[in-house]
Amino acid sequence: MRKIVHLLQSVVLLGVTAASVHAQPVAFAAERENWLRKAADNMPKLTETVKKPQCLVRSEKDPDAFQGWKMVETDGMETLYNQSFKALKEVTVDFGEHLTGYFSFTIGKLNTDADAPLRFRLTFAEVPAELNTPFDPYPGGLSRAWLQDEVVTVMRAPATVTLPRRMAFRYVKIEMLAHSSFDFAITDMQFTAVTSASGTPEELAPTTDPIIAQINRTGLITLKECMQTVYEDGPKRDQRLWIGDLYLESLANTYSFKNHELTRRCLYLLAALADEDGWLHATVFEYPDPHPQTGQHCMDYSLLYGVTLYEYLKATGDRETAEDLWPVVVRQIEFARTYLKDDIYDMDKKPQWWLVFDWKEDLNRHAPMQGLMTFAIDRSYELARMLGREQEVAEWPGVVKAMRKASRKNFYDSKNGVVVSGPDRQVSYLSQVWMILSGTLSQKESVRALEAAFADPASCYPGSPYAYHYLIEAMLHCGMNRQAKELLVDYWGSMIRKGADTFWEVYDPKDDFKSPYNFYPINSYCHAWSCTPVYFINKYKEIFQQ
Amino acid sequence: MRKIVHLLQSVVLLGVTAASVHAQPVAFAAERENWLRKAADNMPKLTETVKKPQCLVRSEKDPDAFQGWKMVETDGMETLYNQSFKALKEVTVDFGEHLTGYFSFTIGKLNTDADAPLRFRLTFAEVPAELNTPFDPYPGGLSRAWLQDEVVTVMRAPATVTLPRRMAFRYVKIEMLAHSSFDFAITDMQFTAVTSASGTPEELAPTTDPIIAQINRTGLITLKECMQTVYEDGPKRDQRLWIGDLYLESLANTYSFKNHELTRRCLYLLAALADEDGWLHATVFEYPDPHPQTGQHCMDYSLLYGVTLYEYLKATGDRETAEDLWPVVVRQIEFARTYLKDDIYDMDKKPQWWLVFDWKEDLNRHAPMQGLMTFAIDRSYELARMLGREQEVAEWPGVVKAMRKASRKNFYDSKNGVVVSGPDRQVSYLSQVWMILSGTLSQKESVRALEAAFADPASCYPGSPYAYHYLIEAMLHCGMNRQAKELLVDYWGSMIRKGADTFWEVYDPKDDFKSPYNFYPINSYCHAWSCTPVYFINKYKEIFQQ
Repeated sequence: MRKIVHLLQSVVLLGVTAASVHAQPVAFAAERENWLRKAADNMPKLTETVKKPQCLVRSEKDPDAFQGWKMVETDGMETLYNQSFKALKEVTVDFGEHLTGYFSFTIGKLNTDADAPLRFRLTFAEVPAELNTPFDPYPGGLSRAWLQDEVVTVMRAPATVTLPRRMAFRYVKIEMLAHSSFDFAITDMQFTAVTSASGTPEELAPTTDPIIAQINRTGLITLKECMQTVYEDGPKRDQRLWIGDLYLESLANTYSFKNHELTRRCLYLLAALADEDGWLHATVFEYPDPHPQTGQHCMDYSLLYGVTLYEYLKATGDRETAEDLWPVVVRQIEFARTYLKDDIYDMDKKPQWWLVFDWKEDLNRHAPMQGLMTFAIDRSYELARMLGREQEVAEWPGVVKAMRKASRKNFYDSKNGVVVSGPDRQVSYLSQVWMILSGTLSQKESVRALEAAFADPASCYPGSPYAYHYLIEAMLHCGMNRQAKELLVDYWGSMIRKGADTFWEVYDPKDDFKSPYNFYPINSYCHAWSCTPVYFINKYKEIFQQ
Repeated sequence: MRKIVHLLQSVVLLGVTAASVHAQPVAFAAERENWLRKAADNMPKLTETVKKPQCLVRSEKDPDAFQGWKMVETDGMETLYNQSFKALKEVTVDFGEHLTGYFSFTIGKLNTDADAPLRFRLTFAEVPAELNTPFDPYPGGLSRAWLQDEVVTVMRAPATVTLPRRMAFRYVKIEMLAHSSFDFAITDMQFTAVTSASGTPEELAPTTDPIIAQINRTGLITLKECMQTVYEDGPKRDQRLWIGDLYLESLANTYSFKNHELTRRCLYLLAALADEDGWLHATVFEYPDPHPQTGQHCMDYSLLYGVTLYEYLKATGDRETAEDLWPVVVRQIEFARTYLKDDIYDMDKKPQWWLVFDWKEDLNRHAPMQGLMTFAIDRSYELARMLGREQEVAEWPGVVKAMRKASRKNFYDSKNGVVVSGPDRQVSYLSQVWMILSGTLSQKESVRALEAAFADPASCYPGSPYAYHYLIEAMLHCGMNRQAKELLVDYWGSMIRKGADTFWEVYDPKDDFKSPYNFYPINSYCHAWSCTPVYFINKYKEIFQQ
C-alpha cells in the first residue's frame, strides 16, 4: 500500500495535474537547448553517390510474384537514350537496387529547337505493384501525397531536370503527358543517392548459409537507406524518427556500421523534444526546426528509450551521453508507474495511449504491455548500475519483482502453460514474447509457452517485422536457437524469395496485400524496423553464421 | 531585264546555292559575338513587385459573358485565411489584375503537427473560362503543357511554397488533392510580379473618351506584361521574341514607356541569331543560351525587321545601332528580292515560307505579301537615307516603283476599285491594307478599296489584333480617321466590354471561342501584338484624344 501512495505522489511530481506542471520538469526545460545543440553537433554528414540506371523493364502480371507483378528486363539503357521519346511515350527503368535521394533526367537530342514545354508524370516505386496499381481514386488511410508520383512541367529543352522531392525507389516510370512538334529523346538519367551510413560492416563467417548472408545484405541495405540525418522509419514514408525504430536500428547499427554518432543525435533529439512534463514523444520531425509530433505519445516506445540508452552505453562506453539523458529514462519509468494498479498496467487509466507493438489490430496488448514495462524497468535498472546510480532508483528491482509476480497471477495460464491477455484470454505470440523477455517465465515455461502459441492455430501471430524481432529475441532468450534461426530464415528469407531489395514495413507471409492503411502501395517497402536480422546474425554468430 | 540579271547575281551572293554559302555571310558571322554581347549589355533589369490577392470568387455560367463564364466575388481573403482548407477543399482567388511572375502560398495554422505531405493542383487563368473548361483529354494543337495547371506536393508544413514556373494570370484555383489527419489553413498568398517596363507613360488629354482611355490603359498593361528580358509575344505563351510582335511592341513602347534599351536588345539578338546566310529567324529563345528556332523563317517578319529599325532610329536617334544592323536589313531585302518574278512576289518559289499576316487560314496572302514587301523596301530606303547610305541601295526606289506598278496590274481590280488576291480573286481586308500601306493605291483608291471590302459580306476580315493593327494604320494612312477611331473603339473596346484585363492574341468579335490551336484555353489572353492602341492613341492625339 505504501508503494501505491508513493506512486500517487509521483503523479503529482510528474505534473500530470495542471497545477504541478512546473514542478520537476523545470530541469528538463533548462537542458532542452543544451540537448538540441548536442543533437545538432552530432548531425552526420550525408554522403552522396551518383547512381545510373541498369536497364529498361516491363511490368508483367504473374500470380506467383509478390503482389501479382514482376519486372522483366527488356533492353539496355542505350535503347532509350537513342530513341524518340515522343514515339515511345512511356518507359520503366530499373536502377537495380533500392535508392534514396534525388532523381535527374536529361531531355536532349532534339530534332529541332524546342518551342514549347513538355510534361511528364514520374512514378517511383519500391516494388513492382506500385507501378501497376491505380493510385486514384485513392482508398488509403494516410495522405495520398506519400505516393511517389509527380507531374513535372519542363519549360525549356534541352534540359536536365532534377526533382526537388527526395524519392525512395528502385523503379521509375516516366510517362509523357504533353509534347510539342519537336522530337526529343531522354538521353540520360541519374540518381544522387544519400545516406549517412558509412564504414564497412564486418564480413560474415564463410560458413554462413547463403540465404542468411543474403538476408544480412538486404538488412544492411534497409538500414543504410533509413540512416539519414536521423534514423528514419522509412525513406519513402514517414521519413522520420520514431523511438521504436530507433531502438531496433541502433541495435543493428551497433552490429554493422557502428555509426554511433547518429544514435547519439537521435537520443538527444528525442530528449530535447519531450513535452513539458519530460515525457517523450513517440516521433519527432527535423524540419523546419526540430519539433515533436505534439500529443503523440506511445507508452511502449517511451519505455524502450531507456533500453536504447542502455544498449548504447554498452556499445560505446559513452558515459557523458548516458549521464545527460539518464533523467529522461527515469521520467519515462516513473510516469509509466503511475499506470500501475496492484502491479498491473492499467489499460483503462486515462489518458490512454497508443501502444504500438505490432501492425495487428486484434492483438490484445495488455500482457505485452505488462511484459514490456517490466523488461524496460529491468534494463533501465541495469543502466543505473552501469552509471552507479542504482541508489536513485532503489525501488525498481522491487517493482520488477512485483510486476512479474502479478503477471504470473494475472496473465499466466499455468495449466496450459501459456500467457493469456484480455477479457477473452487471447493467446498471442507477443504475449508470450514479452513475458519471456521480462523474465516473468522460466526458461522451461518460456519454451512451453511459445510452443503452445505456435501450436494453436487460433493464436494471434505477428503482423510485422517489428513484432518478429521481439519474437526472435524471445526465442533466443529461452534457448530456442535452432528454431529462431529457422524462423528468421523463414520469415525474412521469404521476403527475399519474393524479390525484396529491402525489408518491408508490413509483412504477413499469408497476405501479400496486407496494409494497415487500406492500400498496400502506400506501405513502406524499406522500413527500418525490419532490418534487425543484421543484429541477430552479427551478434549471435555461433547461431547464425554456422 | 538587266535588273533581273542583277537580281540573279544577288542570289549567288546571298548564298542560296550551297556553294556560295560562305561568300558574303562571313561578315555576319564575324559580328555575331559582338551583337550577342550588345544584346546582353542591353539586358533590362526586371522589377519585382509583390502583389496580394483581392478576393475570393466563384465561377458562374453566363451565356452573355465572354466564353460563357464570369467571376463573381464571394468573400474577402480573410475568409480563406481563417478557414480550414481541409474542409474547403477548393478555392478560386482573384488577384484583380493580370500579372506575370511567381506565385507563393503559405500553409499555416495547423491544428497539430503536420505528419504527412499535402498535394494541390493549382490552375492559373488569364480568363474565367480557363478554369471551367476541362483540359483533358486535350484536343489542342500546341503543347498541353502551356496550360497553367501544376500539381504540387508539399512535403512539410507549415511552409511557404513558391512555384518555380513563371505564371501569367489573374485568377488562381487551388484544389486539395491529398491531405492527412491534421487540419490546416492557407494563410497567405502572394505573387511576385515581374516586368522590365519602367517609367510612367504620358497622361492622355482630359478630352479623351473614357472608353479610349480604358483601351489605352489595357494596352499599356498588355505591353508591360509582355516586356520582360525581351519583348515576349505573350507571357503565358510562347514567352518569346518574334519579329512581328517586336515591331508592334516597339511602336507602342515608343509612345509610352520609351524603354528603348529593350528594343535595342531585341534587334541585336535577332541579328546575332540569323542563320549563316544572314537571314533572320522569325523567333529566338533566350535559354539556356540565346538561340534561334532553327528553320523558322517568315518572309513578312524578316522584312518588317528593317521597318522596326527605321522606326527605332526615328524614335531614338541611335545611329550606332542602326549602322551596326543596317547590313541585316539589306540582307533581308536582297533575299526577298530573289523571290520577285516580273516584280511580283513568287508564291511558288521554293523554299516557301510561312507568311504570318494573321490568324486566318483562308486569307490569300499573295497581295498582302506583295504589298508588305513594297512597304518594307520603301521604309528601309528611308532608313538608308537617314544613315546617308542610299547609294548602297540605289536600286530600291526603282524596285518599289516597279512592284507598285506590277501590283496595280496584277492585284488591282480597277473596275470594282478593290484589290484582289489569288486565283479566286479573293477580296480581303488585308489585301487592301497592304496595298494602301505600300503606296500602291492613291488616297482616293485606298478609301474606295477599303469601303468596298467593308461592304462585301464575303470579304475576308481580320482574325487577330495583329491584323487589325495594320487595318487601322491603313485607314489612318488614307485619312479615314473617324472610321479608324470607331473601329479601334469597336474592336478593342468590345474586348474591354467582355472583361479583358489585357488584350487577346486572337479575337474575332463574331466568335469568342476562336482558336488557331483548336482549343481556346490555350490561346494567349495577354498578347503583345494586341497592345497597339497605345501606339495609335498616343501618336495620333488629334484623332484619338479629342
